[in-house]
Amino acid sequence: MVDVDRNGLEVLSEQECWLLLEAAHIGRLAVSIGDRPEIFPVNYVVAGDDAAGRVIVFLTAPGSKLAGAVLGRSVAFEIDAADPLFHTGWSVVLQGTAAEIEGLEELMDAEALPLRPWGPTPKHNYVRISPTSVSGRRILRRTA
Amino acid sequence: MVDVDRNGLEVLSEQECWLLLEAAHIGRLAVSIGDRPEIFPVNYVVAGDDAAGRVIVFLTAPGSKLAGAVLGRSVAFEIDAADPLFHTGWSVVLQGTAAEIEGLEELMDAEALPLRPWGPTPKHNYVRISPTSVSGRRILRRTA
Repeated sequence: MVDVDRNGLEVLSEQECWLLLEAAHIGRLAVSIGDRPEIFPVNYVVAGDDAAGRVIVFLTAPGSKLAGAVLGRSVAFEIDAADPLFHTGWSVVLQGTAAEIEGLEELMDAEALPLRPWGPTPKHNYVRISPTSVSGRRILRRTA
Repeated sequence: MVDVDRNGLEVLSEQECWLLLEAAHIGRLAVSIGDRPEIFPVNYVVAGDDAAGRVIVFLTAPGSKLAGAVLGRSVAFEIDAADPLFHTGWSVVLQGTAAEIEGLEELMDAEALPLRPWGPTPKHNYVRISPTSVSGRRILRRTA
């Protein structure tokens, strides 16, 4: 049975949300600077498993605008996909806190992740988003 | 000549940013609720022309979470595309203020836009984002 919200959108389970987060490579990170929102596209991977707790990991350059904006802050992280032909799509939003990954063991784990910077600038700082909530919605295809 | 920022990314001109904004259908809207960011995917169109000033227009349902979150607030609006095979991509971020479109003439203009709600809920409120800045970056394909 499909769980539908008050807007008629299918509510994705947390398990479905993580499946989609694990399948994607690019997400958008929103952060509040004062009362002003900023939004950054990042390439990322999901690290950890159910037992240990899953987190979003991405790379930044030390001293970058992105690093300065997000570290220690509440962030929202979003992925989506859309099919304009059928007016369908889905999105997953994760709320959490961003922190730099530090400590030898954790950094070695991070180095082993399939994560490479896309841009030409070296990015050596790993940032982890620890989720406080994950939610997702899907627009059901109309059959009428 | 290509304009490159300190991270080695190509800086898109404002004209290129609007070209990309006009070509896309789905963007993400970030807004700060207190110091907490929220992020919403929306389907949108660009309205207006150079002379009159271009704006982003999308639909909301009255009383919706989205309408409550964004109206009268500073927002960031983002679109992007990525090619995982070549690790290339681009993004455009528009900063601005969101306001409901009111007044008969403006509403008639909005009704004429090629904008239809994707979800099953009727959405009768038009929201306009008036930009204060538009910027874009592209990851150059590495030839080495």
